[in-house]
Amino acid sequence: MNDFVFEQVIQQIVELLENKNYHKLKPLLDEINATDLAQILTDLPEESLPIVFRLLSKDLASETFVEMDSDSQELLIRSFSDKELKEIINDLFVDDTVDILEEMPANVVRRILSQTDAQTRKEINELLKYPEDSAGAIMTTEYVWLKKSMTVEEAFSSIRKLAVDKETVYTCYVIDTGRHLEGVVSVKQLLLSSYQTRIEDIMETNIISIHTLDDKETAARSFDKYNYLAMPVVDKENRLVGIITFDDAMDVIREENTEDISKMAATLPTDTPYLKTGVFKLVLSRMPWLLLLMISATFTGLVISNNEDVLNASTYGIILTACIPMLMDTGGNAGSQASVTVIRSLALDEVRFKDIFVVLWKEIRVAVILGFILAIACFAKLMLIDRLYQVENGYMIASVVCLTIFLTVSIAKMIGCSLPLFAKKLKLDPAVVSSPFITTIVDLLSLLIFCNVAIALLG
Amino acid sequence: MNDFVFEQVIQQIVELLENKNYHKLKPLLDEINATDLAQILTDLPEESLPIVFRLLSKDLASETFVEMDSDSQELLIRSFSDKELKEIINDLFVDDTVDILEEMPANVVRRILSQTDAQTRKEINELLKYPEDSAGAIMTTEYVWLKKSMTVEEAFSSIRKLAVDKETVYTCYVIDTGRHLEGVVSVKQLLLSSYQTRIEDIMETNIISIHTLDDKETAARSFDKYNYLAMPVVDKENRLVGIITFDDAMDVIREENTEDISKMAATLPTDTPYLKTGVFKLVLSRMPWLLLLMISATFTGLVISNNEDVLNASTYGIILTACIPMLMDTGGNAGSQASVTVIRSLALDEVRFKDIFVVLWKEIRVAVILGFILAIACFAKLMLIDRLYQVENGYMIASVVCLTIFLTVSIAKMIGCSLPLFAKKLKLDPAVVSSPFITTIVDLLSLLIFCNVAIALLG
Repeated sequence: MNDFVFEQVIQQIVELLENKNYHKLKPLLDEINATDLAQILTDLPEESLPIVFRLLSKDLASETFVEMDSDSQELLIRSFSDKELKEIINDLFVDDTVDILEEMPANVVRRILSQTDAQTRKEINELLKYPEDSAGAIMTTEYVWLKKSMTVEEAFSSIRKLAVDKETVYTCYVIDTGRHLEGVVSVKQLLLSSYQTRIEDIMETNIISIHTLDDKETAARSFDKYNYLAMPVVDKENRLVGIITFDDAMDVIREENTEDISKMAATLPTDTPYLKTGVFKLVLSRMPWLLLLMISATFTGLVISNNEDVLNASTYGIILTACIPMLMDTGGNAGSQASVTVIRSLALDEVRFKDIFVVLWKEIRVAVILGFILAIACFAKLMLIDRLYQVENGYMIASVVCLTIFLTVSIAKMIGCSLPLFAKKLKLDPAVVSSPFITTIVDLLSLLIFCNVAIALLG
Repeated sequence: MNDFVFEQVIQQIVELLENKNYHKLKPLLDEINATDLAQILTDLPEESLPIVFRLLSKDLASETFVEMDSDSQELLIRSFSDKELKEIINDLFVDDTVDILEEMPANVVRRILSQTDAQTRKEINELLKYPEDSAGAIMTTEYVWLKKSMTVEEAFSSIRKLAVDKETVYTCYVIDTGRHLEGVVSVKQLLLSSYQTRIEDIMETNIISIHTLDDKETAARSFDKYNYLAMPVVDKENRLVGIITFDDAMDVIREENTEDISKMAATLPTDTPYLKTGVFKLVLSRMPWLLLLMISATFTGLVISNNEDVLNASTYGIILTACIPMLMDTGGNAGSQASVTVIRSLALDEVRFKDIFVVLWKEIRVAVILGFILAIACFAKLMLIDRLYQVENGYMIASVVCLTIFLTVSIAKMIGCSLPLFAKKLKLDPAVVSSPFITTIVDLLSLLIFCNVAIALLG
């Protein structure tokens, strides 16, 4: 649904609401899918939200509820009668209920839990126990399980019985009496086999599973790598405790990408969308790095004050000083190009620490070529546009700047590519360690090089 | 498979190869899944690649082949007999064949096409016609279709017949005699219905489909939004021409994220993984922005040379000059924090142009608070650590710097948040337009503010 259609539909709904024309509104709502509907409901005036929600058919209502943001969910829950709440909660998958509970204030949580049956409450409590970033925290306990002695026909009737309240039915897990994971069989495989085939003859036994306490990002990246629809999650004894479905994995990947991008821009990640994030939270997420990087730029300033003789020299001091922004920017850009490329490759598991010499050798060659071209371009620009040849020592000044560019670009690329690799090796976050710091480190080095080259060549 | 296990398996394979112990090697290979195997094969010495590949069972061979990089694929194809090539190609899904063809030199393409049957060749040629970044280019023409007059029982026998060579069977498309898309029904829905139910009674008619010429990123983001397993692709007359499966959508999302991250780091995106990208290609992807940004930093330099009087003043010139790196860095960081946040929100469709005033108002408040705190911190640092109070006019100099910080952070946030929104409105790429330029613009402005504040307060 594009922006234009979206606005039109909202307007139509608001008009029908104003005229209390619920007869026309209901079929209109039923035509919209849950994801778009959740978005539309959020954009409606708060007081009409419960009215519109009650017009939805039962299935659409619970699907839409899951997709809404937590503020709207809370609003709705407070407007629900106990009976309505019970109906919605019973319709939700357990992992979605847990996601909702995590965002709600304590009194709402208590009310929700009081409306769930004992079995569901037990499952919810199990899921709530896993650490926030673990595979256990994003898995669901509702999956289709089979026994290896079953025939395909028995398997199908089992699936038919179990399917109603399962998020995905297409991957079935074969377990023994101790719930140990023995195999996996897809519905496609079942469809391709005769009814008399035994499950143990067609099940895949070479299973990739993850542990409840594994990092959820590792789990999500496996989806991307192996193209799975669902992935089994096992405990220490290899007992199947749940599955992760691909939609939850996609959510994790999107969140992790957003986090990495934030970190590269020297921002602490927040877990809410931008428009939903308060001013104070934004300040807190941006302040630490700004402050730290401002203070660390002091060292760069020190290089300038310690080289007063060169940079304040009456004949060429101001020419050199005028080049400082260009040198700092070029060094910083060259460094982040390398570091961001390596950070991304690490995140996608395309580069590992053992590749460090391959990476360094590649970057050395790239740096030499780039540094050389930039130095030539800079020399031409200084001599032609800045007309430096009319100045005494003009060629020497241009040489100082160009040599600095060449050396800065080279060093920036070396540091830029190796810093994330070392961070990863030390089990630190490559995006946090390298991206914001690279500019500061390269600024400092570029000015040190600049002043020393100037002293050496200009005396 | 983690790094350590990976290295161990490779070593074991190399040893078995050296001893020509193929009896032991074959079962070992059969235990590994296709994705890991493709990685392992790439790491083996080139000459052993065809030997190992021929040991694989038929299904595993074609699954592994798809997952390999194009260099290894080309090597293998050149080692295949015509019969072997035909077997592999027949086993591949059409969209995978097209992906492979796009990476191969012309003579290999001709050889592959000569081994495909007429029908497949026609489908391949159809797919090759779509523009590179369109939905048509990533779709597959192999999907399960049903008629609305069928019963569930008939549907299942249809699926059983069609399933063998279809990438996904879980979403079935209901079409009329003109191949117009009439509905969608999931295998889960079929499993939950009785055998006598008619498809038209259970199919979903409110279908989200995409057009062959739609941007593939739009298509992929819809997967993420609506949690689909597959999405129908229709032509101008709403005739079903193919489907996009979730694994291809995940690939697109990963590529688009990598592209956005590259652009934010002033690098032109390349379509190959870092380690596979040649030095010359890396130079080409990094040179344009480095050069452009280096040249544009000239304007920042001009501000310095034009304010020689202030910055070269004997009493406080060097103190002011020493603050330039800190001012430039802080401004640049503050600007990219805002721009990167908005760029990401735009990519995820969380922010739209109509939100510009909400965004500006949010950023104004954030900027004022951040600017104020940073200015205070900077004042304290200048007075205490730099002992500026011993210098004549020390308080005035510190005030110049702090006022500049406050103004720079405020302006940087304003520009940072609005530039991507305007870029999007003008149908330009927000990541390209705003990220690399923001530093240059903010550098220039921060120095202009600095010099003007200095002239105003210090005379």
